[in-house]
Amino acid sequence: MNFRATVLTLYPEMFPGALGLSLAGRALERGDWTLDTVQIREFGLGRHRAVDDTPAGGGAGMVLRADVLAAAIDHATPEGDRRPRLLMSPRGKPLTQAKVRALAAGPGAVIVCGRFEGVDQRVIEARGLEEVSIGDYILSGGEPAALVLLDAVVRLLPGVMGNEASGGEESFENGLLEHPHYTRPPEWEGRAIPEVLMSGNHARIAAWRRAEAERLTAERRPDLLISAQPTQK
Amino acid sequence: MNFRATVLTLYPEMFPGALGLSLAGRALERGDWTLDTVQIREFGLGRHRAVDDTPAGGGAGMVLRADVLAAAIDHATPEGDRRPRLLMSPRGKPLTQAKVRALAAGPGAVIVCGRFEGVDQRVIEARGLEEVSIGDYILSGGEPAALVLLDAVVRLLPGVMGNEASGGEESFENGLLEHPHYTRPPEWEGRAIPEVLMSGNHARIAAWRRAEAERLTAERRPDLLISAQPTQK
Repeated sequence: MNFRATVLTLYPEMFPGALGLSLAGRALERGDWTLDTVQIREFGLGRHRAVDDTPAGGGAGMVLRADVLAAAIDHATPEGDRRPRLLMSPRGKPLTQAKVRALAAGPGAVIVCGRFEGVDQRVIEARGLEEVSIGDYILSGGEPAALVLLDAVVRLLPGVMGNEASGGEESFENGLLEHPHYTRPPEWEGRAIPEVLMSGNHARIAAWRRAEAERLTAERRPDLLISAQPTQK
Repeated sequence: MNFRATVLTLYPEMFPGALGLSLAGRALERGDWTLDTVQIREFGLGRHRAVDDTPAGGGAGMVLRADVLAAAIDHATPEGDRRPRLLMSPRGKPLTQAKVRALAAGPGAVIVCGRFEGVDQRVIEARGLEEVSIGDYILSGGEPAALVLLDAVVRLLPGVMGNEASGGEESFENGLLEHPHYTRPPEWEGRAIPEVLMSGNHARIAAWRRAEAERLTAERRPDLLISAQPTQK
Protein backbone atom coordinates (compact mmCIF):
# COMPACT_ATOMS: atom_id res chain seq x y z
CA MET A 1 0.00 0.00 0.00
CA ASN A 2 1.47 3.32 -1.05
CA PHE A 3 1.21 6.57 0.83
CA ARG A 4 -2.07 8.29 -0.03
CA ALA A 5 -2.44 12.04 0.50
CA THR A 6 -5.80 13.79 0.25
CA VAL A 7 -5.83 17.58 0.58
CA LEU A 8 -9.03 19.50 1.40
CA THR A 9 -8.68 23.03 0.13
CA LEU A 10 -10.37 26.01 -1.49
CA TYR A 11 -7.42 26.16 -3.92
CA PRO A 12 -6.98 22.67 -5.39
CA GLU A 13 -5.06 24.25 -8.29
CA MET A 14 -2.18 24.90 -5.85
CA PHE A 15 -1.50 21.13 -5.99
CA PRO A 16 0.68 19.30 -6.84
CA GLY A 17 2.62 22.55 -7.41
CA ALA A 18 6.24 22.07 -6.38
CA LEU A 19 5.37 18.46 -5.48
CA GLY A 20 4.87 17.72 -9.18
CA LEU A 21 8.57 18.31 -9.89
CA SER A 22 11.95 16.98 -8.83
CA LEU A 23 12.12 14.19 -6.24
CA ALA A 24 8.45 14.30 -5.16
CA GLY A 25 7.23 14.70 -8.74
CA ARG A 26 9.15 11.68 -10.01
CA ALA A 27 7.86 9.65 -7.06
CA LEU A 28 4.31 10.77 -7.88
CA GLU A 29 4.75 9.68 -11.49
CA ARG A 30 6.11 6.31 -10.39
CA GLY A 31 3.14 5.84 -8.07
CA ASP A 32 5.24 5.77 -4.89
CA TRP A 33 2.56 8.03 -3.49
CA THR A 34 -0.77 9.47 -4.62
CA LEU A 35 -2.21 12.93 -4.21
CA ASP A 36 -5.80 13.95 -4.65
CA THR A 37 -7.62 17.12 -3.71
CA VAL A 38 -11.13 17.87 -2.51
CA GLN A 39 -12.59 21.30 -3.26
CA ILE A 40 -14.25 22.37 0.00
CA ARG A 41 -16.48 24.79 -1.91
CA GLU A 42 -18.31 21.87 -3.51
CA PHE A 43 -19.81 21.33 -0.05
CA GLY A 44 -20.70 25.01 0.39
CA LEU A 45 -24.21 26.19 1.14
CA GLY A 46 -26.77 27.84 -1.11
CA ARG A 47 -26.48 29.33 -4.53
CA HIS A 48 -23.13 30.94 -3.67
CA ARG A 49 -21.71 27.80 -2.09
CA ALA A 50 -20.84 29.72 1.08
CA VAL A 51 -18.15 28.03 3.16
CA ASP A 52 -17.53 30.63 5.87
CA ASP A 53 -19.36 33.02 8.15
CA THR A 54 -18.58 35.76 10.70
CA PRO A 55 -17.04 34.76 14.05
CA ALA A 56 -19.40 34.14 16.95
CA GLY A 57 -18.77 36.86 19.53
CA GLY A 58 -17.55 39.31 16.89
CA GLY A 59 -14.12 40.21 15.53
CA ALA A 60 -12.32 40.44 12.23
CA GLY A 61 -12.11 37.80 9.53
CA MET A 62 -14.28 34.87 8.61
CA VAL A 63 -14.50 31.36 10.06
CA LEU A 64 -14.79 28.14 8.04
CA ARG A 65 -18.12 26.49 8.91
CA ALA A 66 -18.18 23.20 10.80
CA ASP A 67 -21.02 21.70 8.76
CA VAL A 68 -19.41 22.50 5.41
CA LEU A 69 -15.97 21.20 6.37
CA ALA A 70 -17.42 18.09 8.02
CA ALA A 71 -19.27 17.24 4.80
CA ALA A 72 -16.01 17.56 2.83
CA ILE A 73 -14.12 15.43 5.35
CA ASP A 74 -16.80 12.74 5.41
CA HIS A 75 -16.75 12.63 1.63
CA ALA A 76 -12.95 12.25 1.58
CA THR A 77 -12.74 9.61 4.29
CA PRO A 78 -15.05 6.65 3.79
CA GLU A 79 -15.68 4.26 6.69
CA GLY A 80 -12.50 2.41 7.58
CA ASP A 81 -10.11 5.06 6.28
CA ARG A 82 -7.42 4.93 8.94
CA ARG A 83 -5.29 7.83 7.72
CA PRO A 84 -4.56 10.57 10.27
CA ARG A 85 -6.53 13.78 9.71
CA LEU A 86 -4.36 16.84 9.98
CA LEU A 87 -5.32 20.50 10.09
CA MET A 88 -2.52 22.86 9.11
CA SER A 89 -2.69 25.61 11.74
CA PRO A 90 -0.30 27.95 13.57
CA ARG A 91 -2.04 26.82 16.78
CA GLY A 92 -0.94 23.24 16.19
CA LYS A 93 1.84 21.09 17.55
CA PRO A 94 5.10 22.04 15.82
CA LEU A 95 6.07 19.66 13.03
CA THR A 96 9.27 17.74 13.75
CA GLN A 97 11.38 15.32 11.75
CA ALA A 98 10.21 12.54 14.11
CA LYS A 99 6.58 13.34 13.21
CA VAL A 100 7.49 13.43 9.51
CA ARG A 101 9.05 9.98 9.88
CA ALA A 102 5.97 8.62 11.67
CA LEU A 103 3.67 9.94 8.94
CA ALA A 104 5.90 8.45 6.21
CA ALA A 105 5.61 5.04 7.89
CA GLY A 106 1.80 5.23 7.84
CA PRO A 107 -0.92 4.79 5.19
CA GLY A 108 -1.06 8.46 4.21
CA ALA A 109 -2.73 11.62 5.46
CA VAL A 110 -5.91 13.64 5.03
CA ILE A 111 -4.82 17.27 5.20
CA VAL A 112 -7.26 20.12 5.79
CA CYS A 113 -6.08 23.55 4.69
CA GLY A 114 -7.74 26.41 6.53
CA ARG A 115 -8.17 29.89 5.09
CA PHE A 116 -9.60 33.05 6.63
CA GLU A 117 -9.45 33.56 10.36
CA GLY A 118 -9.74 29.89 11.25
CA VAL A 119 -11.94 26.83 11.42
CA ASP A 120 -14.97 26.27 13.66
CA GLN A 121 -13.65 24.50 16.75
CA ARG A 122 -16.50 22.00 16.74
CA VAL A 123 -15.42 20.30 13.52
CA ILE A 124 -11.86 19.99 14.87
CA GLU A 125 -13.26 18.09 17.86
CA ALA A 126 -16.03 16.15 16.12
CA ARG A 127 -13.78 14.87 13.31
CA GLY A 128 -10.66 14.40 15.41
CA LEU A 129 -8.48 16.82 13.45
CA GLU A 130 -4.88 16.95 14.65
CA GLU A 131 -3.59 20.52 14.41
CA VAL A 132 -0.06 20.70 12.99
CA SER A 133 2.05 23.85 12.71
CA ILE A 134 5.07 24.14 10.42
CA GLY A 135 6.40 27.19 12.29
CA ASP A 136 5.65 30.32 14.30
CA TYR A 137 4.51 32.59 11.49
CA ILE A 138 1.20 33.27 9.78
CA LEU A 139 0.45 32.13 6.22
CA SER A 140 -2.39 33.16 3.90
CA GLY A 141 -3.74 29.64 4.27
CA GLY A 142 -2.82 26.05 5.03
CA GLU A 143 -1.82 25.22 1.46
CA PRO A 144 1.87 26.25 1.51
CA ALA A 145 2.15 24.40 4.84
CA ALA A 146 0.62 21.27 3.32
CA LEU A 147 3.13 21.44 0.44
CA VAL A 148 5.97 21.60 2.97
CA LEU A 149 4.65 18.74 5.09
CA LEU A 150 4.16 16.49 2.07
CA ASP A 151 7.58 17.35 0.64
CA ALA A 152 9.20 16.34 3.93
CA VAL A 153 7.22 13.10 4.12
CA VAL A 154 7.56 12.02 0.50
CA ARG A 155 11.37 12.15 0.48
CA LEU A 156 11.36 9.52 3.24
CA LEU A 157 9.08 7.06 1.42
CA PRO A 158 10.77 3.81 0.34
CA GLY A 159 12.63 4.18 -2.95
CA VAL A 160 12.14 7.92 -3.30
CA MET A 161 15.60 9.24 -2.47
CA GLY A 162 17.50 6.49 -4.29
CA ASN A 163 20.92 7.75 -5.27
CA GLU A 164 20.13 11.17 -3.89
CA ALA A 165 19.98 9.60 -0.43
CA SER A 166 22.14 11.26 2.15
CA GLY A 167 22.57 11.39 5.87
CA GLY A 168 21.07 14.84 5.86
CA GLU A 169 17.96 13.85 7.71
CA GLU A 170 20.07 12.61 10.58
CA SER A 171 20.73 16.23 11.56
CA PHE A 172 17.72 16.58 13.76
CA GLU A 173 17.80 12.99 14.91
CA ASN A 174 21.01 13.41 16.87
CA GLY A 175 19.64 16.72 18.14
CA LEU A 176 22.27 18.84 16.40
CA LEU A 177 22.39 21.15 13.42
CA GLU A 178 24.57 19.90 10.61
CA HIS A 179 28.26 20.76 10.29
CA PRO A 180 29.42 23.02 7.42
CA HIS A 181 29.97 21.52 3.97
CA TYR A 182 32.74 22.10 1.44
CA THR A 183 33.48 20.85 -2.05
CA ARG A 184 35.87 21.61 -4.91
CA PRO A 185 37.75 23.80 -5.67
CA PRO A 186 40.18 23.50 -2.71
CA GLU A 187 40.72 27.25 -2.79
CA TRP A 188 38.18 29.85 -3.93
CA GLU A 189 38.44 33.63 -3.61
CA GLY A 190 41.33 33.15 -1.19
CA ARG A 191 39.25 30.83 1.02
CA ALA A 192 40.58 27.33 1.56
CA ILE A 193 38.73 24.18 2.59
CA PRO A 194 39.64 23.45 6.25
CA GLU A 195 42.83 21.38 6.26
CA VAL A 196 41.36 18.54 8.31
CA LEU A 197 38.83 17.75 5.55
CA MET A 198 41.70 17.27 3.08
CA SER A 199 43.69 15.03 5.48
CA GLY A 200 42.08 11.73 4.59
CA ASN A 201 42.03 10.92 8.31
CA HIS A 202 38.49 9.69 8.81
CA ALA A 203 38.58 9.79 12.61
CA ARG A 204 39.83 13.39 12.65
CA ILE A 205 37.22 14.37 10.06
CA ALA A 206 34.42 12.79 12.08
CA ALA A 207 35.62 14.52 15.25
CA TRP A 208 35.84 17.90 13.49
CA ARG A 209 32.34 17.54 12.05
CA ARG A 210 30.90 16.58 15.43
CA ALA A 211 32.63 19.55 17.10
CA GLU A 212 31.40 21.96 14.40
CA ALA A 213 27.86 20.62 14.71
CA GLU A 214 27.97 21.12 18.46
CA ARG A 215 29.42 24.61 18.11
CA LEU A 216 26.80 25.67 15.54
CA THR A 217 23.95 24.26 17.60
CA ALA A 218 25.11 25.97 20.78
CA GLU A 219 25.48 29.23 18.86
CA ARG A 220 22.23 29.19 16.88
CA ARG A 221 19.87 26.80 18.61
CA PRO A 222 20.65 26.39 22.29
CA ASP A 223 16.99 25.34 22.64
CA LEU A 224 17.79 22.07 20.85
CA LEU A 225 20.51 21.26 23.38
CA ILE A 226 18.17 22.00 26.27
CA SER A 227 15.29 19.93 24.92
CA ALA A 228 17.64 17.00 24.26
CA GLN A 229 18.36 16.77 27.97
CA PRO A 230 16.15 14.70 30.25
CA THR A 231 13.18 16.66 31.57
CA GLN A 232 14.01 18.36 34.83
CA LYS A 233 11.59 18.37 37.69
CA MET B 1 9.26 50.93 -4.31
CA ASN B 2 7.52 47.58 -4.18
CA PHE B 3 8.82 44.42 -2.57
CA ARG B 4 11.10 42.61 -5.01
CA ALA B 5 11.77 38.89 -4.58
CA THR B 6 14.47 37.07 -6.53
CA VAL B 7 14.73 33.31 -6.08
CA LEU B 8 17.87 31.39 -7.05
CA THR B 9 16.95 27.79 -7.72
CA LEU B 10 17.53 24.70 -9.84
CA TYR B 11 13.73 24.48 -10.22
CA PRO B 12 12.48 27.87 -11.40
CA GLU B 13 9.32 26.18 -12.67
CA MET B 14 8.26 25.71 -9.02
CA PHE B 15 7.56 29.48 -8.95
CA PRO B 16 5.24 31.29 -8.56
CA GLY B 17 3.34 28.05 -7.79
CA ALA B 18 0.90 28.65 -4.96
CA LEU B 19 2.07 32.28 -4.89
CA GLY B 20 0.43 32.81 -8.30
CA LEU B 21 -3.03 32.25 -6.82
CA SER B 22 -5.31 33.70 -4.13
CA LEU B 23 -4.05 36.60 -2.04
CA ALA B 24 -0.41 36.49 -3.16
CA GLY B 25 -1.34 35.91 -6.80
CA ARG B 26 -3.71 38.86 -6.96
CA ALA B 27 -1.03 41.04 -5.32
CA LEU B 28 1.49 39.80 -7.90
CA GLU B 29 -0.88 40.71 -10.73
CA ARG B 30 -1.46 44.15 -9.23
CA GLY B 31 2.29 44.71 -8.98
CA ASP B 32 2.29 44.98 -5.17
CA TRP B 33 5.34 42.75 -5.35
CA THR B 34 7.51 41.20 -8.06
CA LEU B 35 9.00 37.75 -8.32
CA ASP B 36 11.78 36.63 -10.60
CA THR B 37 13.85 33.49 -10.65
CA VAL B 38 17.47 32.76 -11.55
CA GLN B 39 18.30 29.27 -12.78
CA ILE B 40 21.51 28.34 -10.94
CA ARG B 41 22.37 25.80 -13.61
CA GLU B 42 22.96 28.60 -16.12
CA PHE B 43 26.11 29.30 -14.10
CA GLY B 44 27.16 25.64 -14.01
CA LEU B 45 30.52 24.45 -15.26
CA GLY B 46 31.43 22.64 -18.46
CA ARG B 47 29.34 20.96 -21.06
CA HIS B 48 27.04 19.46 -18.42
CA ARG B 49 26.68 22.71 -16.49
CA ALA B 50 27.72 20.97 -13.27
CA VAL B 51 26.60 22.80 -10.14
CA ASP B 52 27.61 20.36 -7.42
CA ASP B 53 30.45 18.07 -6.39
CA THR B 54 31.24 15.49 -3.70
CA PRO B 55 31.76 16.68 -0.10
CA ALA B 56 35.33 17.43 0.99
CA GLY B 57 36.26 14.88 3.64
CA GLY B 58 33.84 12.29 2.24
CA GLY B 59 30.26 11.37 3.03
CA ALA B 60 26.94 10.98 1.27
CA GLY B 61 25.23 13.49 -0.98
CA MET B 62 26.49 16.34 -3.11
CA VAL B 63 27.41 19.91 -2.20
CA LEU B 64 26.49 23.01 -4.23
CA ARG B 65 29.72 24.65 -5.43
CA ALA B 66 30.75 28.05 -4.06
CA ASP B 67 31.98 29.39 -7.41
CA VAL B 68 28.80 28.44 -9.27
CA LEU B 69 26.44 29.83 -6.65
CA ALA B 70 28.51 33.00 -6.25
CA ALA B 71 28.26 33.66 -9.99
CA ALA B 72 24.47 33.28 -9.82
CA ILE B 73 24.24 35.57 -6.78
CA ASP B 74 26.47 38.20 -8.36
CA HIS B 75 24.34 38.13 -11.49
CA ALA B 76 21.14 38.55 -9.45
CA THR B 77 22.41 41.35 -7.20
CA PRO B 78 24.01 44.24 -9.05
CA GLU B 79 26.12 46.78 -7.13
CA GLY B 80 23.90 48.73 -4.74
CA ASP B 81 21.25 46.04 -4.36
CA ARG B 82 20.48 46.35 -0.66
CA ARG B 83 18.06 43.45 -0.35
CA PRO B 84 18.90 40.85 2.32
CA ARG B 85 20.30 37.58 0.94
CA LEU B 86 18.67 34.57 2.52
CA LEU B 87 19.59 30.90 2.28
CA MET B 88 16.75 28.55 3.15
CA SER B 89 18.40 25.94 5.38
CA PRO B 90 17.45 23.75 8.35
CA ARG B 91 20.64 25.02 10.00
CA GLY B 92 19.36 28.59 9.93
CA LYS B 93 17.75 30.85 12.48
CA PRO B 94 14.09 29.86 12.89
CA LEU B 95 11.70 32.10 10.96
CA THR B 96 9.39 34.10 13.24
CA GLN B 97 6.49 36.45 12.59
CA ALA B 98 8.73 39.32 13.75
CA LYS B 99 11.28 38.42 11.06
CA VAL B 100 8.49 38.16 8.47
CA ARG B 101 7.33 41.63 9.45
CA ALA B 102 10.87 43.05 9.18
CA LEU B 103 11.29 41.54 5.70
CA ALA B 104 7.92 42.91 4.58
CA ALA B 105 9.02 46.40 5.63
CA GLY B 106 12.17 46.16 3.49
CA PRO B 107 12.98 46.41 -0.22
CA GLY B 108 12.62 42.68 -0.91
CA ALA B 109 14.74 39.56 -0.63
CA VAL B 110 17.18 37.48 -2.62
CA ILE B 111 16.43 33.87 -1.68
CA VAL B 112 18.84 31.03 -2.38
CA CYS B 113 17.30 27.55 -2.47
CA GLY B 114 19.75 24.78 -1.69
CA ARG B 115 19.37 21.22 -2.92
CA PHE B 116 21.46 18.13 -2.28
CA GLU B 117 23.41 17.80 0.95
CA GLY B 118 24.07 21.53 1.33
CA VAL B 119 25.94 24.57 0.09
CA ASP B 120 29.70 25.18 0.24
CA GLN B 121 30.26 27.13 3.46
CA ARG B 122 32.61 29.60 1.74
CA VAL B 123 29.89 31.13 -0.43
CA ILE B 124 27.68 31.56 2.64
CA GLU B 125 30.46 33.60 4.25
CA ALA B 126 31.78 35.40 1.16
CA ARG B 127 28.34 36.57 -0.01
CA GLY B 128 26.88 37.19 3.43
CA LEU B 129 24.02 34.72 3.15
CA GLU B 130 21.70 34.70 6.13
CA GLU B 131 20.53 31.16 6.84
CA VAL B 132 16.81 30.95 7.61
CA SER B 133 14.95 27.84 8.72
CA ILE B 134 11.17 27.47 8.49
CA GLY B 135 11.16 24.55 10.94
CA ASP B 136 12.92 21.53 12.38
CA TYR B 137 12.37 19.09 9.54
CA ILE B 138 14.20 18.25 6.32
CA LEU B 139 12.85 19.17 2.87
CA SER B 140 13.94 17.98 -0.56
CA GLY B 141 15.23 21.50 -1.19
CA GLY B 142 14.80 25.13 -0.25
CA GLU B 143 12.00 25.77 -2.72
CA PRO B 144 8.97 24.82 -0.58
CA ALA B 145 10.53 26.85 2.25
CA ALA B 146 10.92 29.88 -0.04
CA LEU B 147 7.25 29.59 -1.04
CA VAL B 148 6.27 29.61 2.64
CA LEU B 149 8.50 32.55 3.52
CA LEU B 150 7.20 34.63 0.61
CA ASP B 151 3.58 33.75 1.35
CA ALA B 152 4.01 34.97 4.93
CA VAL B 153 5.73 38.18 3.82
CA VAL B 154 3.42 39.07 0.94
CA ARG B 155 0.24 39.00 3.02
CA LEU B 156 1.74 41.78 5.17
CA LEU B 157 2.58 44.09 2.27
CA PRO B 158 0.52 47.30 2.13
CA GLY B 159 -2.84 46.79 0.44
CA VAL B 160 -2.55 43.02 0.08
CA MET B 161 -4.96 41.82 2.74
CA GLY B 162 -7.60 44.49 2.12
CA ASN B 163 -10.98 43.23 3.27
CA GLU B 164 -9.49 39.89 4.17
CA ALA B 165 -7.50 41.65 6.88
CA SER B 166 -7.85 40.15 10.29
CA GLY B 167 -6.16 40.23 13.65
CA GLY B 168 -4.86 36.75 13.03
CA GLU B 169 -1.26 37.81 12.79
CA GLU B 170 -1.48 39.22 16.28
CA SER B 171 -1.41 35.67 17.65
CA PHE B 172 2.32 35.39 17.83
CA GLU B 173 2.81 39.05 18.63
CA ASN B 174 1.25 38.79 22.06
CA GLY B 175 3.13 35.51 22.53
CA LEU B 176 0.01 33.35 22.66
CA LEU B 177 -1.70 30.89 20.37
CA GLU B 178 -5.08 32.03 19.16
CA HIS B 179 -8.32 31.20 20.99
CA PRO B 180 -10.83 28.81 19.34
CA HIS B 181 -13.22 30.13 16.70
CA TYR B 182 -16.90 29.45 16.16
CA THR B 183 -19.46 30.52 13.59
CA ARG B 184 -23.02 29.66 12.57
CA PRO B 185 -24.97 27.45 13.10
CA PRO B 186 -25.36 27.93 16.87
CA GLU B 187 -25.80 24.20 17.31
CA TRP B 188 -24.27 21.50 15.11
CA GLU B 189 -24.23 17.73 15.71
CA GLY B 190 -25.32 18.42 19.28
CA ARG B 191 -22.41 20.79 19.87
CA ALA B 192 -23.28 24.37 20.86
CA ILE B 193 -21.23 27.53 20.52
CA PRO B 194 -19.99 28.48 24.03
CA GLU B 195 -22.67 30.58 25.68
CA VAL B 196 -20.38 33.51 26.44
CA LEU B 197 -19.80 34.11 22.69
CA MET B 198 -23.55 34.51 22.19
CA SER B 199 -23.92 36.90 25.16
CA GLY B 200 -23.13 40.14 23.37
CA ASN B 201 -21.07 41.13 26.40
CA HIS B 202 -17.83 42.34 24.81
CA ALA B 203 -15.84 42.44 28.03
CA ARG B 204 -16.80 38.86 28.95
CA ILE B 205 -16.04 37.70 25.40
CA ALA B 206 -12.61 39.35 25.45
CA ALA B 207 -11.83 37.81 28.84
CA TRP B 208 -12.92 34.35 27.67
CA ARG B 209 -10.81 34.58 24.52
CA ARG B 210 -7.77 35.68 26.50
CA ALA B 211 -8.23 32.84 29.00
CA GLU B 212 -8.65 30.29 26.21
CA ALA B 213 -5.54 31.59 24.44
CA GLU B 214 -3.56 31.27 27.66
CA ARG B 215 -4.91 27.79 28.33
CA LEU B 216 -4.12 26.57 24.81
CA THR B 217 -0.64 28.04 24.88
CA ALA B 218 0.18 26.53 28.27
CA GLU B 219 -1.13 23.18 27.06
CA ARG B 220 0.49 23.05 23.62
CA ARG B 221 3.38 25.50 23.62
CA PRO B 222 4.75 26.13 27.09
CA ASP B 223 7.97 27.14 25.30
CA LEU B 224 6.25 30.32 24.09
CA LEU B 225 5.36 31.30 27.65
CA ILE B 226 8.92 30.67 28.81
CA SER B 227 10.55 32.64 26.00
CA ALA B 228 8.18 35.56 26.61
CA GLN B 229 9.59 35.94 30.10
CA PRO B 230 12.69 38.02 30.71
CA THR B 231 15.87 36.01 30.30
CA GLN B 232 16.93 34.43 33.54
CA LYS B 233 20.51 34.42 34.63
